[in-house]
Amino acid sequence: MFECFSIQAPSAALDDALQHKIDNKTKPLGALGTLETLAYQLGRIQGTLHIDVSKPKMIVFAADHGVVAQGVSLFPQEVTPQMVMNFLHGGAAVSVFCAQHNVPLQVVDVGVNATLEDHPLLRKRKVALGSNDFSQEPAMTTQVLSQAIQAGVSEVDTAINDGVNLLMFGEMGIGNTCVSSCMMSALMGIDPLESAGRGTGLDASGVSRKAQVIAASLQRAEAHTGQSVAQWNAQTLAEQVGGFEVLALAGAMLQSAQRKTAFVVDGFICSVALLFAQKVAPNVSEYAIFAHQSNEKAHKLLLAHLNADPILSLDLRLGEGSGAILSYPLIQSAAVFLNTMASFESAGVSDGDNI
Amino acid sequence: MFECFSIQAPSAALDDALQHKIDNKTKPLGALGTLETLAYQLGRIQGTLHIDVSKPKMIVFAADHGVVAQGVSLFPQEVTPQMVMNFLHGGAAVSVFCAQHNVPLQVVDVGVNATLEDHPLLRKRKVALGSNDFSQEPAMTTQVLSQAIQAGVSEVDTAINDGVNLLMFGEMGIGNTCVSSCMMSALMGIDPLESAGRGTGLDASGVSRKAQVIAASLQRAEAHTGQSVAQWNAQTLAEQVGGFEVLALAGAMLQSAQRKTAFVVDGFICSVALLFAQKVAPNVSEYAIFAHQSNEKAHKLLLAHLNADPILSLDLRLGEGSGAILSYPLIQSAAVFLNTMASFESAGVSDGDNI
Repeated sequence: MFECFSIQAPSAALDDALQHKIDNKTKPLGALGTLETLAYQLGRIQGTLHIDVSKPKMIVFAADHGVVAQGVSLFPQEVTPQMVMNFLHGGAAVSVFCAQHNVPLQVVDVGVNATLEDHPLLRKRKVALGSNDFSQEPAMTTQVLSQAIQAGVSEVDTAINDGVNLLMFGEMGIGNTCVSSCMMSALMGIDPLESAGRGTGLDASGVSRKAQVIAASLQRAEAHTGQSVAQWNAQTLAEQVGGFEVLALAGAMLQSAQRKTAFVVDGFICSVALLFAQKVAPNVSEYAIFAHQSNEKAHKLLLAHLNADPILSLDLRLGEGSGAILSYPLIQSAAVFLNTMASFESAGVSDGDNI
Repeated sequence: MFECFSIQAPSAALDDALQHKIDNKTKPLGALGTLETLAYQLGRIQGTLHIDVSKPKMIVFAADHGVVAQGVSLFPQEVTPQMVMNFLHGGAAVSVFCAQHNVPLQVVDVGVNATLEDHPLLRKRKVALGSNDFSQEPAMTTQVLSQAIQAGVSEVDTAINDGVNLLMFGEMGIGNTCVSSCMMSALMGIDPLESAGRGTGLDASGVSRKAQVIAASLQRAEAHTGQSVAQWNAQTLAEQVGGFEVLALAGAMLQSAQRKTAFVVDGFICSVALLFAQKVAPNVSEYAIFAHQSNEKAHKLLLAHLNADPILSLDLRLGEGSGAILSYPLIQSAAVFLNTMASFESAGVSDGDNI
C-alpha cells in the first residue's frame, strides 16, 4: 500500500549560499528569527535562492467517524456536512481567511456520512459513509484505506500539476480529535490520558470518557490483530483506528514531499496525520511547515516529538486549516525578505562586526 | 508638558453585544483564541460590532543617541542615517513587509545625527543632532523634549485626519536598546542587569558593559536632580535618560489613544515607549495591540509587567516596526472573522451545547 512512497531529503547543495544570502541582508545576524528558518527551509526544498510561494492552495479533507456513537464529541455528527456546506458557501473561518489572502479553497469529501450536492469547490471522493465505530470493530477495510490515501495523493498531484507551489491542508470531521488522539497513542505508545484533549470543548469528565473509549478501542484492536500496538505496521494501525480524512491528509503530505513541494501543517489532527506519514516515510517531515501550536493539550507534546517550532501560537482550537491559512502571510514574508530585502553591500550600510 | 493628554478608557456599552457576536460564529466557543481577544478589543476601541482596520499606516521614528560614545552598540552611529535611507529606498525589512501588505510607510527624522536629503516618505522633524551622552549630562533640554513629544503627536494627528484607522509604530536609532533599557530600569525600578540585553548582537561582556553604563548614568542623573529615580516624574526621567525617537513614540501612542485609535506596539523599544506613556496616562494601554514578543531578554519581563499577550513570538530582534507590520494580517483576520464569518443561525449549523 505504501511502497510507492520514496521520499528523498532536500539537497544540501545550496545550504551555504542560502545562509550567506540570509546573513547579508540589512539586519543584525539572525534578527528575523523564525522567518530566517523558514526562508532557509523553503530555499532547500525548492532548491533555489529565490523562493516562490505565490501559488498556494488550501485543501480541506472531510469525513465522519463511527466512534462518535460513544459520545466523544460535543457536537452531533450532522455538523460535519453542515460545516462542509459552510466551507463551500464561504462562511466558515477557513473560508473567510482564504478569501482574505486570495488562496483558493477546495473541500474533499472523503467519507462524510451524508450525500452532498455538487459544488464547484467540492471534490467527491467518498470512500464510505463514515468509518466504522473502532471501539467495536476495525475502522475500515484495506480497500477503503487505500482509497482514502489515494484521495490525498490525487488531489495533491492535481494541484502541483496546476502549478501550486505551497500546499495547505485542513480537515473537518466531528469526532476526529478522538480518532487522532487514538492514532497518536498507538503511534507514540503513550497513554490515552496524555493524548486525549478537549476537542471542540469537552469538560474534564468528557475528556476522561474520551480517553476511556480510546483505551478500550486499542485493547479491542490488539485482541483483534493478535499483536500489541507497538507491533502494528502503518497499514494495520490505519485499518484498526484510523479516520478517512486523517489518512487522506497523510497521503497528501506524502505526495507533496515526494514531489518536493512544501506543505503547511495545521493543528493537532494534521500533526497526527504527519506523525502517521512519518511512520511510512521519515523524510516527509523535511517538507513540513508547522503553522501553529493549538490549544489542544496533546498538540504541544506532539510538536515536541516532531521537533517542530511552529510559526504561530494563538490558542486556536478550530482545525479546518484555519491555523495554516493564518500562517500564510508570514510564510510569504519569509520569501519577501529573502527575495527582496537589500544586502549590506547593495544598500551601503555598514555591517559593524556582523561578518 | 503632558497636561494636554486626557485619555478615556473605551466605552463598555457594546461589551455584551460584541461577545455575543463572537460566540455565535460557526466555531466552538473561544476556538479562535487570540483573534477573539483582538476582535473584542478593537470593537471596544472603535465602538462598533463591525471593525475596520483597512486604512493602516506605519510611522518609523529615527534618532541618534550620545550614549553610543560609551561603546554600547555593535554597530557604529552612521548606521542610523544609512538605515533611514534604506527604509526610504525600500530595502529594509520594514520596507519590504509594508510593501507586501500595501501599508504606507513614513519615516520621521526626530533627531538623526546627519543631514538627510528630502524624500517623499521622509518627514523632517529633527529636534537636535542626536541626544547628549546621558552618562555624562542630561540627555536633553525641556525644549527639545517637548519638540520630540510633539513630533509624535503631530504625525498621528495628520494620519488620523487622513482617515487612518490603525497606527503602527517603529523606530531606528543605533544605541536605542541601551536608552530603552535605561528608561525601563528607571520606570520599573529594576536593576540594569535585568533591563539590558543583546540589542543588535552584543556578547555577554558587551551586555555587562551596557548594564554598567546604564547604572552609572542613573547615578549621575540622581546626583544631578537631587532625587532618587523613584521620585522622578515623567518629564525629569525623559530629560535625564530619554531618547528622541522613544519619546516621539510615546507622544504618538498618547495621541492615538486620545483620539480613540488603536495602535500596534512593535518590540522592546516601542514597549518601553508605552511604559513611559503609561506613566503619563495609564489608560493609553487600552488602545495598544502588542505585535510580538522579541528575542531581547527584558522584553518578556516588560510584556508581563504590561499584562500583554502579544500576537507573535518569532524570535525577532530587529525593531524598525518589523514585528508590527508582520502582525498586521492577523489583526486583519480578527476583523475578517468578526465582520464576515457566518453565525450558527445564518449557516444552519447545529451548535451542540455551545449556547
